[in-house]
Amino acid sequence: MIIILKKTAKKEEIDELTKRLTDKGVIVSPVIGETMTILGLVGDTSKVSMDTIQQHHIVERVLKVQEPYKKANRKFHPDDTIVEIDGQRIGNGYFGVIAGPCSVEGEEQIISIAQRAKAAGANFLRGGAFKPRTSPYSFQGLELEGLRLLKLAKEATGLPIVTELMSTKFVDEFEADVDMIQIGARNMQNFDLLKEVGKTKTPVLLKRGLSATYEEWLMSAEYIMSEGNENVILCERGIRTFETETRNTLDIQAVPVIQKLSHLPIIIDPSHAGGSAYLVPSMSKSAVMSGANGLMVEIHHDPENAWSDGQQCLNPNEFDELMAVVKQLIAIEGKHLDAVK
Amino acid sequence: MIIILKKTAKKEEIDELTKRLTDKGVIVSPVIGETMTILGLVGDTSKVSMDTIQQHHIVERVLKVQEPYKKANRKFHPDDTIVEIDGQRIGNGYFGVIAGPCSVEGEEQIISIAQRAKAAGANFLRGGAFKPRTSPYSFQGLELEGLRLLKLAKEATGLPIVTELMSTKFVDEFEADVDMIQIGARNMQNFDLLKEVGKTKTPVLLKRGLSATYEEWLMSAEYIMSEGNENVILCERGIRTFETETRNTLDIQAVPVIQKLSHLPIIIDPSHAGGSAYLVPSMSKSAVMSGANGLMVEIHHDPENAWSDGQQCLNPNEFDELMAVVKQLIAIEGKHLDAVK
Amino acid sequence: MIIILKKTAKKEEIDELTKRLTDKGVIVSPVIGETMTILGLVGDTSKVSMDTIQQHHIVERVLKVQEPYKKANRKFHPDDTIVEIDGQRIGNGYFGVIAGPCSVEGEEQIISIAQRAKAAGANFLRGGAFKPRTSPYSFQGLELEGLRLLKLAKEATGLPIVTELMSTKFVDEFEADVDMIQIGARNMQNFDLLKEVGKTKTPVLLKRGLSATYEEWLMSAEYIMSEGNENVILCERGIRTFETETRNTLDIQAVPVIQKLSHLPIIIDPSHAGGSAYLVPSMSKSAVMSGANGLMVEIHHDPENAWSDGQQCLNPNEFDELMAVVKQLIAIEGKHLDAVK
Amino acid sequence: MIIILKKTAKKEEIDELTKRLTDKGVIVSPVIGETMTILGLVGDTSKVSMDTIQQHHIVERVLKVQEPYKKANRKFHPDDTIVEIDGQRIGNGYFGVIAGPCSVEGEEQIISIAQRAKAAGANFLRGGAFKPRTSPYSFQGLELEGLRLLKLAKEATGLPIVTELMSTKFVDEFEADVDMIQIGARNMQNFDLLKEVGKTKTPVLLKRGLSATYEEWLMSAEYIMSEGNENVILCERGIRTFETETRNTLDIQAVPVIQKLSHLPIIIDPSHAGGSAYLVPSMSKSAVMSGANGLMVEIHHDPENAWSDGQQCLNPNEFDELMAVVKQLIAIEGKHLDAVK
Repeated sequence: MIIILKKTAKKEEIDELTKRLTDKGVIVSPVIGETMTILGLVGDTSKVSMDTIQQHHIVERVLKVQEPYKKANRKFHPDDTIVEIDGQRIGNGYFGVIAGPCSVEGEEQIISIAQRAKAAGANFLRGGAFKPRTSPYSFQGLELEGLRLLKLAKEATGLPIVTELMSTKFVDEFEADVDMIQIGARNMQNFDLLKEVGKTKTPVLLKRGLSATYEEWLMSAEYIMSEGNENVILCERGIRTFETETRNTLDIQAVPVIQKLSHLPIIIDPSHAGGSAYLVPSMSKSAVMSGANGLMVEIHHDPENAWSDGQQCLNPNEFDELMAVVKQLIAIEGKHLDAVK
Repeated sequence: MIIILKKTAKKEEIDELTKRLTDKGVIVSPVIGETMTILGLVGDTSKVSMDTIQQHHIVERVLKVQEPYKKANRKFHPDDTIVEIDGQRIGNGYFGVIAGPCSVEGEEQIISIAQRAKAAGANFLRGGAFKPRTSPYSFQGLELEGLRLLKLAKEATGLPIVTELMSTKFVDEFEADVDMIQIGARNMQNFDLLKEVGKTKTPVLLKRGLSATYEEWLMSAEYIMSEGNENVILCERGIRTFETETRNTLDIQAVPVIQKLSHLPIIIDPSHAGGSAYLVPSMSKSAVMSGANGLMVEIHHDPENAWSDGQQCLNPNEFDELMAVVKQLIAIEGKHLDAVK
Repeated sequence: MIIILKKTAKKEEIDELTKRLTDKGVIVSPVIGETMTILGLVGDTSKVSMDTIQQHHIVERVLKVQEPYKKANRKFHPDDTIVEIDGQRIGNGYFGVIAGPCSVEGEEQIISIAQRAKAAGANFLRGGAFKPRTSPYSFQGLELEGLRLLKLAKEATGLPIVTELMSTKFVDEFEADVDMIQIGARNMQNFDLLKEVGKTKTPVLLKRGLSATYEEWLMSAEYIMSEGNENVILCERGIRTFETETRNTLDIQAVPVIQKLSHLPIIIDPSHAGGSAYLVPSMSKSAVMSGANGLMVEIHHDPENAWSDGQQCLNPNEFDELMAVVKQLIAIEGKHLDAVK
Repeated sequence: MIIILKKTAKKEEIDELTKRLTDKGVIVSPVIGETMTILGLVGDTSKVSMDTIQQHHIVERVLKVQEPYKKANRKFHPDDTIVEIDGQRIGNGYFGVIAGPCSVEGEEQIISIAQRAKAAGANFLRGGAFKPRTSPYSFQGLELEGLRLLKLAKEATGLPIVTELMSTKFVDEFEADVDMIQIGARNMQNFDLLKEVGKTKTPVLLKRGLSATYEEWLMSAEYIMSEGNENVILCERGIRTFETETRNTLDIQAVPVIQKLSHLPIIIDPSHAGGSAYLVPSMSKSAVMSGANGLMVEIHHDPENAWSDGQQCLNPNEFDELMAVVKQLIAIEGKHLDAVK
């Protein structure tokens, strides 16, 4: 941490502030110049609040030097994390493809889509059982019945299940039945929920909040990791900007940035980002070449009649075509896509 | 709802789509022009999903005509709602002033600040017991002990208590002890939590999410109201924009816009919006003249040593000065500030 | 400027970098800690490029300490600037009210509106002669004929003229005929135009770009001032955010922030910010209480038939009503509104 | 255009409005329902101003159906435009690679970089002669001398020149010497400049403004095209969002969206978007797979000592490596990269 003092700061005031800081266990190195005085803080600065110091009457500005996340930080964990989810791997050289419908609608629907997803090369099945909907009057998901149907689809195909958890009430059921728990964008800072999934051992897919900075996103991963669960995969799904022609703006730069800041895997969800099926193929291909560790794509056997988000689903044939190119690109990137037996 | 068809749509395709819509109970009026064909939908369109229709191969675009919120909608409730909170009123001609520290830190702290708040003319006490913090390593609040201290401060001053609920686990305690439950910006779309507070009878202060549109915000109010609790007050506390000199951008236009769209009261929190004490006085005065129904201001007897957010707190003397002008402006606006006995 | 070095930086590399910086005339004070090494730069750092240093292989991060604007900086000019425009003053205790139509449409229109503006208490007349329109097919203004009509309105009322300059081609005409030259939001970083108006002596009203930070805005003021023209007034007119219910988001916090950073006057344009007449009265009143030094309001005798932006214009009666309250608030703020004889 | 009327609209008011619209030459088809009345407008609606109608007292809302751009609109020009620039093609199956330094710094610098760019496979040379800088105190470019040096580099390599024009003063020089005129992000709505380049025959590279919507961007292309110059190439270079870890957010979805809305070629500038060299390789590869028609990459022989933007430049060896993969991806996309002889 670096503290820039006001020009008007007097020596005794500087001494008083220095003492206050030293008492908190940090080492204070002053830089005294003609036009400014700077205090450089080294050592363990975690007990020193930037906010509080900013408040001090002789302080001009406080600058942060270190990232506030520890367990998610690349600096302290230089090697890429590989998360294993029921035998399938995501991270480093392992690319994961998660496919499936927005909502679980029925047994035949979810099983037949799972079979097509697997046939095309996906190694995970997604499907919403609990749905976060902007309107209380919209379909809210089949809930626990949806979870039961996902398990049937897993029995039929072997694909591990990824589905969203919205409430601490169902943590036990998810821990028992789900292979990777998704935390949705709207709950990225539902700290209560983060702590609860942090206490499980189930891998967590943490979506980026609509207006979350990279740092806030990694701090949410830190909430999960600080409770003991280090199996966190990040998912970029579009951020909110001024542009309204697309639902959100896919921040593809998130991939190289997160890979610089953190050792956690990062995947891309092009379906929710743009909100339109026509954007999914080009954005999926871009995602692979951005260096992402995986993709999450919505598919539906009959998008026009999907119960939710049909406009952004590929049909199984379109997904087959896309996967043909995606596999080529994964190879160019030198990565490996595990196959489910 | 209005559906614009592609130029290439054939008569039999239009008939097929029309039938599908008519079957859902809406009345379809076609407008057939040389350069476009439009289907105007009247009647109850709630069963018709915009997303699904958008997906139809002869559809160019779907335009929404009606707002998706009903209970929060000014159109169906032309009169301003007045929310009564333990005898104090907010809404229409009643202006509310909520003041207090960011966090409850101890008995003496909260009681003495409550007394100063009341003396200056505030009619509600705020204070965080459960704190949503970006970092898992930051102070997370005194939790239930904080709630107990808030009750002591209420006993001492008579000020009704406003405090944030972050988890469905503590709904019962809040319903018993808190006069107005605050839902924070990060939980504005924690639908599970919204439904739970919707089942209580306690008034709810619903903060706007950092990147929530007016419509999404009102839809979150609708979640609470649709469960039976219509005592909702909206609180604008800054939105996330590209500007980083201030913590967030106070969207003061929210006041006239929300008052046009909805009958619910709206108040302003200038402390969290800007994140700096020097912004609070001018923004508070602006808030009154924008037509807002209230203010929420953070105050602390010793901001430099506050446990959280000290940099945005006024000290009691500054708050006294501010309230002197605020009262003048409330009078110019023709509004009334209830006094707590 | 502060340079944080990578942990891996070796002594000889640090020495090499230090020498390079010292050669540019700055004084380098190193802070060597266990977990980081910092170089504090004092003296004249203007020749040291942050970008270039950031690039250096031993540099972790470069932090700026000083604002890049000099002439616009409050630190070097602690007193508020008062700009005098043809006898009317704006800045410090002087509040200016600029009113008039979006576009000059004809002689009778501009004169009659000018008379109503003056009668209500405005002390400046605005009116667009050259119009920046998103579409090449929209009305582009009466151009030089519009300027001629504005002069007639000034003759009739005595109100100084404020109008927008879009091209360096007409600088001479504007310098001759216009009392305050407006630089529009879209041209805030048209540096060529800024330099040209900087060479005149005519006061400049510099609108904030749609997505300009405070610093960029002040740097644009600096472009004008560095050419010799220090008569710059800043105008906040809304920024682009994710919210689309209003045209732009009025950033009212700009007032206290700019007044902290700079000595230049700042005024508010509520008409362009929100883009709707119903927002103008409450936002104008908020603007006065935010501490702004003035207001710019669009008025039209027949908004439904205005040639441009009619939806955001007040009619003269509405403006009369608004000005009655505005004058009260100016008095509460302890400011003075010059009257045109 | 579609006009939704207020419930309270009376028959005679509707008739009056209908007549007013019919008089402007459009055909008005009313849709009268129980809960709303809609007027569908077909025919030539270009003389009807949405703003003015919105203002009418019986109008609830006006919805636009057609895009305001004509010449840039894919609907009226279904085939992809191919722009030819001094023998090199961009658009449809032709991919263009523009490379070079941020600023022209000297004869040896620009010629040697041009040679390395060509050797790696680039078919255009970029280099700034006139530099738009946020600060008036920063290096502003070698100006006309820079143009002269670019010509020498072209003589040496045959690479067509792309460079930015900031002022209408130098249009003649640019028309004479430059192969493609770049309009920078800050000047995207400098309508005066757009009109002037529209009068030339030189191809124009139109960068997207920092906060420009797709529609505004295409309207700026329309300004150029409506003056007669249809050789416009669009360049996405990042938009301004809340995220500050990167300079801007690369909106990669712009590629499929623009290709849907328009027939004009679109290229990506990853260097300015992210502002950091480490982002350039992954974003360049993503750009090719997004379907973009080209790339614009900053390269410098000695980035640490570049006069501007060194932190975002690749060195020639890094560019060689990148181009090896880029060529592979261009082939997968079924596109062709013209070679300069």
